[in-house]
Amino acid sequence: MTRFELFDLIKRKESFLCVGLDSDIHKIPRHLLDKEDPVFEFNKQIIDATLPYTIAYKPNTAFYESRGAAGWISLEKTIDYLKQFKKEAFVIADAKRGDIGNTSKQYANAFFRQMDVDALTVAPYMGEDSVTPFLDYEGKWVILLALTSNAGANDFQFLQPQFSAMMDKMGIRTKRPRIKKLYEQVLATSYRWGANEDNMMFVVGATKAEMLGGIRQIVPNHFLLVPGVGAQGGSLEQVAEFGMNDQCGIIVNSSRGIIFASKEEDFAAVAATKAQELQVKMKKILQNKQLIK
Amino acid sequence: MTRFELFDLIKRKESFLCVGLDSDIHKIPRHLLDKEDPVFEFNKQIIDATLPYTIAYKPNTAFYESRGAAGWISLEKTIDYLKQFKKEAFVIADAKRGDIGNTSKQYANAFFRQMDVDALTVAPYMGEDSVTPFLDYEGKWVILLALTSNAGANDFQFLQPQFSAMMDKMGIRTKRPRIKKLYEQVLATSYRWGANEDNMMFVVGATKAEMLGGIRQIVPNHFLLVPGVGAQGGSLEQVAEFGMNDQCGIIVNSSRGIIFASKEEDFAAVAATKAQELQVKMKKILQNKQLIK
Repeated sequence: MTRFELFDLIKRKESFLCVGLDSDIHKIPRHLLDKEDPVFEFNKQIIDATLPYTIAYKPNTAFYESRGAAGWISLEKTIDYLKQFKKEAFVIADAKRGDIGNTSKQYANAFFRQMDVDALTVAPYMGEDSVTPFLDYEGKWVILLALTSNAGANDFQFLQPQFSAMMDKMGIRTKRPRIKKLYEQVLATSYRWGANEDNMMFVVGATKAEMLGGIRQIVPNHFLLVPGVGAQGGSLEQVAEFGMNDQCGIIVNSSRGIIFASKEEDFAAVAATKAQELQVKMKKILQNKQLIK
Repeated sequence: MTRFELFDLIKRKESFLCVGLDSDIHKIPRHLLDKEDPVFEFNKQIIDATLPYTIAYKPNTAFYESRGAAGWISLEKTIDYLKQFKKEAFVIADAKRGDIGNTSKQYANAFFRQMDVDALTVAPYMGEDSVTPFLDYEGKWVILLALTSNAGANDFQFLQPQFSAMMDKMGIRTKRPRIKKLYEQVLATSYRWGANEDNMMFVVGATKAEMLGGIRQIVPNHFLLVPGVGAQGGSLEQVAEFGMNDQCGIIVNSSRGIIFASKEEDFAAVAATKAQELQVKMKKILQNKQLIK
């Protein structure tokens, strides 16, 4: 899917909602457990119910790998099922992969050729040659971790040069751009690796919405994948205020808040209601930004 | 496996060699392709042939995931096969995982409970709560990426505060420890997350052997997993000189240089020869360090 097609999808559905398929078999409704593949059945019903309100689905591989090969099969079946909605849903494998070039090539093959998802989340620590193999697939996207939504983000992502931090504190401005915090450095270094905003996005946690303004100075045009709204406590309105650009530019993910909103037989209908509640808010935001009528 | 048992294994086998099972189905000998599970058959023969010279095996998940569920089954069968050699081989899943706590728990379950490997490589970018779920399993190890062997390591791992870099250049010493390069910061911050050197190790690429001295100042007692000897050009002697400690403290991995040394019917015998060549060198190094007689 191209950036243009993605923006078009957002305008058509009046939504920038991604549903995270973190489909933990221990948390799905019990009545599904006698199905042949309970997790796939769960995903299928969630997808069918939420598709009108949703522009993207994001299975997180951890919840499938934890069941071994059987889980991997549930994942493949889910991705296959989503293929019939090719123009209706952008499919993200949230796998946070990344390795030396020779090895990243194998991951790229796994997710972009075998599984054929639209996008893959990738970890930045190993640098350029660990990321570029994922950028060789036309129409496919790398979503690089920049600023994550968890508490541990503070351990390394905010590391800032002492000198630069001191000047910030004293309010001293310099002509040369300041040496940045690690997550800013990741953005500033990596966005040139691909075809800019046409095959790269960045993960920015909703719990750090106040940093989105600074992030937009570095990557004004890139799409940002924003997890952390809902269970993790991020605010949709703040994310939209600081993160949106003139092509929407944000995909906001909610996982547990939608898919596990009910654990009874009505789970799919309740998930649809929760997705629709977010979609209605998103529609208003898109209207206020004059991106839709 | 405890640290004591690992050191004992090293002394018994007079080796600190890990064989990387990067078993790309497109690179294994063609005569194996009519077997029911060619990759498992390949691994099995490699393991049988190299076991006398090897203290660890390290399948990299990418080479299995690239074949989807079928690949995952080959991986599970390989790990299962290795279980009969429990006291003879330390098993590392080289998966470079890491996610928010809730999700890392699922990965920990996948690799430490379902698959039951001894150790897992983990990426540090997301910080403490992305790593600690892996540290809750008794007898299991986290091997955290610190300084990797690829060119992209230079993009972020060496980021150093400007002020600190300037003082280094001018030869100024301070009492307060200098703010470090990112990979040093990862070491200095993370080693306290677990039970110190008893359930954490670090990845340090052999191509950066000259940095091992500095790394040993931060983590004198931890085991280091050292990839990059062989195909990637790292030197075993340099790694040993700068990286060893009084419990050996290094596990040196070779993948392609051993498993693909021959692509003919004699592949396992040739792999054994290559592994033995390294083991003989390692024996001498261990003798010189007076760790064995």
